[in-house]
Amino acid sequence: MRSVSIIGAGITPFGVRPESAVRLGAEACRTAMEDAGIGPDRVEAFFLGNFAGHAFTGQNHLAPMVAHAAGLGPVPCTRAEGACASGGLAMRQGVLAIASGAVDVVLVAGVEKMTGAATGETAQILAAAGDYESEASIGATFPALFALIARRHMHEYGTTREDMARVAVKNHAHGYLNPGAHLQIKITLEEVLGSRPVADPICLLDCSPISDGAAAVVLCPGEMAADLHPKPIRVLASAQASDVPALSDKSDITRFQSTCRAAEEAFRRAGMQPEDIDLAEVHDCFTIAEIMALEDIGFYRKGEGGRGACEGETALGGAMPVNASGGLKAKGHPVGATGVAQICEIALQLRGDAGPHQVPGAEVGLAHNLGGSGATCAVHILASGA
Amino acid sequence: MRSVSIIGAGITPFGVRPESAVRLGAEACRTAMEDAGIGPDRVEAFFLGNFAGHAFTGQNHLAPMVAHAAGLGPVPCTRAEGACASGGLAMRQGVLAIASGAVDVVLVAGVEKMTGAATGETAQILAAAGDYESEASIGATFPALFALIARRHMHEYGTTREDMARVAVKNHAHGYLNPGAHLQIKITLEEVLGSRPVADPICLLDCSPISDGAAAVVLCPGEMAADLHPKPIRVLASAQASDVPALSDKSDITRFQSTCRAAEEAFRRAGMQPEDIDLAEVHDCFTIAEIMALEDIGFYRKGEGGRGACEGETALGGAMPVNASGGLKAKGHPVGATGVAQICEIALQLRGDAGPHQVPGAEVGLAHNLGGSGATCAVHILASGA
Repeated sequence: MRSVSIIGAGITPFGVRPESAVRLGAEACRTAMEDAGIGPDRVEAFFLGNFAGHAFTGQNHLAPMVAHAAGLGPVPCTRAEGACASGGLAMRQGVLAIASGAVDVVLVAGVEKMTGAATGETAQILAAAGDYESEASIGATFPALFALIARRHMHEYGTTREDMARVAVKNHAHGYLNPGAHLQIKITLEEVLGSRPVADPICLLDCSPISDGAAAVVLCPGEMAADLHPKPIRVLASAQASDVPALSDKSDITRFQSTCRAAEEAFRRAGMQPEDIDLAEVHDCFTIAEIMALEDIGFYRKGEGGRGACEGETALGGAMPVNASGGLKAKGHPVGATGVAQICEIALQLRGDAGPHQVPGAEVGLAHNLGGSGATCAVHILASGA
Repeated sequence: MRSVSIIGAGITPFGVRPESAVRLGAEACRTAMEDAGIGPDRVEAFFLGNFAGHAFTGQNHLAPMVAHAAGLGPVPCTRAEGACASGGLAMRQGVLAIASGAVDVVLVAGVEKMTGAATGETAQILAAAGDYESEASIGATFPALFALIARRHMHEYGTTREDMARVAVKNHAHGYLNPGAHLQIKITLEEVLGSRPVADPICLLDCSPISDGAAAVVLCPGEMAADLHPKPIRVLASAQASDVPALSDKSDITRFQSTCRAAEEAFRRAGMQPEDIDLAEVHDCFTIAEIMALEDIGFYRKGEGGRGACEGETALGGAMPVNASGGLKAKGHPVGATGVAQICEIALQLRGDAGPHQVPGAEVGLAHNLGGSGATCAVHILASGA
């Protein structure tokens, strides 16, 4: 397979944005192309991660809409959807397209415009990422599903409410340093524990917010990268796996098999181990999800993921910072954008361009993007250097 | 690039089906795997074309749902969406995945479950394939857009209502021979011309029906194909292009630039000319769309596409049969399934397995799948032989 590198990255500020999905997507695309120092005429294919543009905004068929607004030519434009992992899947399609030899310069973007819908409507739209017939149709929306997961994790491994709350405190402390984050506010352990219950044991401050935003990266073959950007980033591995969608079909809800499999394949393809990773962006849609990701990827033994935030190991300045951007929890979670934003964040970190939340000297990073209650997972490992 | 072959094909009967999208998709997958003589454990990646499962059925994140129902393992499952070209785009992602060397055996499916929604609701859902802000939001649903196109084509080239109606008569005559077609009824020129006006000059019998259905193909590297199937089919070219989404942004609405570009690239990659094609399945969502496809692909000069059906050249028994399956017009148009069903149809024709509507001795076929009012197009050229 041809190797692939990242030569441009762009993220819009996340939050409540007045622009349409098309404009947000185009904004991220233009920033990424500018960062890569290329014009839209150089782009040979476009992949867009988007979960529910149709439901949120009335517009389906978003890939050519965004591409046209970003000034691209009549190139192949494809939307990839895998619920909250749509961005990671779009990234993987971009990697495969270059690896195949069909194209050289590829633009990958992710976008979601969520804040226009009413709260109950939004919960229903998001619930369509799970098994609609057996879950959403009887009221099991995502906070409820992750509450069941959290409760079981507490029961099996002694994980505590405080362990989860500390993930929120840590990621908000990170997001406070990220000028593009949706929630640039520090919070305390007491505030998380005392926040409004959503689905016991999950409280409001255990949840990622409903955000608008977009992100984009420019990819090219490894052999072209050094000529196009002074600090290219290598894609060492692009892995993806799936699992049964419904929680009731899983034999063990304290782990996501899709994460375990995708991470295992990513490490195998990169020829690496978890201890080789300097920083990671993981899918903390709820605080328990970060704890599980740390375990399922292999950074911690099963049941010990709560240690990461409690002992400071996953904080900025710790042994392996996790979600230095603020994560979904504080940076925000515009669903289709998230996977691509994680890739951007890792790429900027490895270039030393992450700004106030820079992890000094990071050379290898991992991005973990989960879809639904684990039916889809994409894991990418990136490294600095041409 | 590694070459890719088709070693299995399966189509569900199209029509009003009681099953869910997940069950329809799984049914086509099982038929395709059975045709390929492989079990679900052999499949290494899954791509699903689906346009609007969320809007039609409440279920998003359909790829792992269908894969699980079809018995696949925890393999990468990705949904591709490009409006009515979603199936063609899923096919292309499957081809790229194999060409990249990442995987060998790939299952590609397309599905749409449309008949559960009310008529007005369906029109709105389909309208999201165009530019929502400038078209659908002010009432320009698809029959209206194609009526504008048809009227302009009539004005520029002298195309007549009869030219269009003859496409419907021909495709219904073909669909009458296809036991899987939604509308297995012969119709007359007078019936088409006298059918209820929808958006002048388009009448009811100029429109493809609202259908449920699914289709699937099994792909593998060319070098493996002969060992896996007695009659493998080669994918000579997989091409895709885009165009501006809104009709008002196009300089000429009598041609789809995305079709022109995708067809040109497909012929270049296959090292062929339009006259080398023995049969084609083209995207006849409305009768005028078949006439334009014949011109834009290069089978006829611009303005002369109406000749195809009038002079019998594109009928079964003619020089180059078009939509021998009945096309979208009579076979039915479950949106996300259509592109994959076209590939199945061509593959079965080239194998000599198409049944009553077989085109004798066909060796090279072309599939043309259009998205929206031309913002997306995928063209595949297939040939018999290992």
